[in-house]
Amino acid sequence: MQLPLHGSNPQYLYQSLRVTMPDSFYDFSANINPLGPPAGLKEQWPSFFESILEYPDHENRELTELAASMEQVSEKSILFGNGGAELISLTARMLAGKNVLIIQPAFSEYAAACLANQCTITNYILKEPEWKLDVEGLLPLIKEQDALYLCTPNNPTGMSYAKEDVLQLLTACQKENCLVILDEAFYDFVIDPFTYRTYLSYFVNLIILRSMTKMFAMPGVRLGYVLAHPGIIDVLKSFKPHWSVSSLAQKAGSICLREVVHQQETVKYIEKQKRQLQFFYKTTGLVVSQSSVNFYLLRDPELDARHLLTYLLERGIVPRHTFNFPGLDGKWLRFAVKGEREHAVLMEEFTQWKKHRSTL
Amino acid sequence: MQLPLHGSNPQYLYQSLRVTMPDSFYDFSANINPLGPPAGLKEQWPSFFESILEYPDHENRELTELAASMEQVSEKSILFGNGGAELISLTARMLAGKNVLIIQPAFSEYAAACLANQCTITNYILKEPEWKLDVEGLLPLIKEQDALYLCTPNNPTGMSYAKEDVLQLLTACQKENCLVILDEAFYDFVIDPFTYRTYLSYFVNLIILRSMTKMFAMPGVRLGYVLAHPGIIDVLKSFKPHWSVSSLAQKAGSICLREVVHQQETVKYIEKQKRQLQFFYKTTGLVVSQSSVNFYLLRDPELDARHLLTYLLERGIVPRHTFNFPGLDGKWLRFAVKGEREHAVLMEEFTQWKKHRSTL
Repeated sequence: MQLPLHGSNPQYLYQSLRVTMPDSFYDFSANINPLGPPAGLKEQWPSFFESILEYPDHENRELTELAASMEQVSEKSILFGNGGAELISLTARMLAGKNVLIIQPAFSEYAAACLANQCTITNYILKEPEWKLDVEGLLPLIKEQDALYLCTPNNPTGMSYAKEDVLQLLTACQKENCLVILDEAFYDFVIDPFTYRTYLSYFVNLIILRSMTKMFAMPGVRLGYVLAHPGIIDVLKSFKPHWSVSSLAQKAGSICLREVVHQQETVKYIEKQKRQLQFFYKTTGLVVSQSSVNFYLLRDPELDARHLLTYLLERGIVPRHTFNFPGLDGKWLRFAVKGEREHAVLMEEFTQWKKHRSTL
Repeated sequence: MQLPLHGSNPQYLYQSLRVTMPDSFYDFSANINPLGPPAGLKEQWPSFFESILEYPDHENRELTELAASMEQVSEKSILFGNGGAELISLTARMLAGKNVLIIQPAFSEYAAACLANQCTITNYILKEPEWKLDVEGLLPLIKEQDALYLCTPNNPTGMSYAKEDVLQLLTACQKENCLVILDEAFYDFVIDPFTYRTYLSYFVNLIILRSMTKMFAMPGVRLGYVLAHPGIIDVLKSFKPHWSVSSLAQKAGSICLREVVHQQETVKYIEKQKRQLQFFYKTTGLVVSQSSVNFYLLRDPELDARHLLTYLLERGIVPRHTFNFPGLDGKWLRFAVKGEREHAVLMEEFTQWKKHRSTL
């Protein structure tokens, strides 16, 4: 069985590696807010039942008005979708048969959606372990490209690219009529979140993707949105199935968009957890990426990651493998930042791992 | 403002016709089970909250196993999607740039999705008020076509095409390598439901679409599935966004698939309501389609339907207009079958209408 393409649903990872799944486990493979969804979501859950009895508003009017006001853009520049994955599919559909550059390592759905749409894909792999946005190396390639995908803060490394590099790339792409699909799915996990949204009026080639299921811990509800020039929004909308955003997602979304405090508390909490982990990792000799968000890459410089992956899975610790990220090729493992209890278990397992690996 | 493309969300119809929306209204424009969802759905609603905290199973394994066993097909012949509209989008994506025949009048999403995918569309319009499947007229056209869309029982007429006609068309299409997308979204509303599913093994060109939101009255949750040859399923799946079926839809779906009794009671209830209505309509001189399902077309042979539409909207009765159904062109109005209370109001309004129209 092929390794699963994504984190979450750990049963598929266990099955593909033929490791027996323990009765209980800690899932570090999905990058979800460890504080869970905002309290308002659970409080209002009983009243959501009524919403499933009616067709969703296909215009997502309430959500769109709210998001437009918060993002300070025109309603015509916003399109809500059935999660980030649908939005990526729509951009890839728009680019069917075109030349697409993917700055790697990056979320694997860009490549999957572009491949399905017969795009010609060029991967540009940034150098580990800094993964700096190598604008000089990228510039000569842009002329040939119809679009590029850039994920910042990056999934899977967790690192935010330097603003001046991103702007330089955007400027060069605008000159060469190359669309830039900038995935900001995790931007709100950064201390002092920075968004390229304010550059939408400068760069008509800029398409920003946003997810609402990571920060608000509701990946089972699918919800995300695109910010772009109205002309691009119209094209994406033409490919979008009618009613693709469920009534429930619309209800949940309009609660979550107002939950600024929950977002701020989450960021502080994650920062604290990360500091403790980083201190621990330094003492163990394990290498981790300089993540600005709620997940990070980790590797043991002395051993193939497959050993560590199997070792952890057997002990009920589920990381995300990286075999399908070009440039990582399985050498690293990705971990979500979770709570104190989970991290105590994780650190204990790594301490045991150190002892174990010295016997290998 | 353009007339809305679909029923439901009546505010858009009121706005486009510049009719003031009354405080309360009866929405006959959405074809949803008048008995509502099965009781189990509401009972289990509180426990569904947990499901939104995790990523959906992108393989929809539980649902797929259950549906495969009920439909007696291989799991490889089933693909669940984010409502019928997503499934239609996926078929149209597969047919991008091809020649597509739509047997009209029919659900308008076929044309919308095919247009977005640059298909060349030929509409074949069946003759009212029988809308008989004119196989003789269709056969000469098939050679040129890569696919055709056929909706049976038909939305918007409510009529089921004769089985021998459908089979003759399927046979001819198979011979000419023409795919047949057979939309059975309403098949389970028919007394003694008949499905073409058993013909899947004879016709590799057959793609059956199913909806789960009409019978189970949960259009706000999006859920439907395709039945087809595994080779076709693989192609459709390649275009489908990952996780497009929400966790909630999967939970709700696996409850509803087992609700055979609710479905049987619904069909009986609708049949009883329709009989009463048909008797009434005969006495009024209004013409209705011979529907086998939970909605029907209606027209006043003596007056343009726009008068009647506006008259009803002003009185809080919301039908579905038919301006965007080729072959109907607004001459008819579509009504969902609802409950006794709603029908008493509807019949009273038609009685008033008869008096009103004699003064026009």
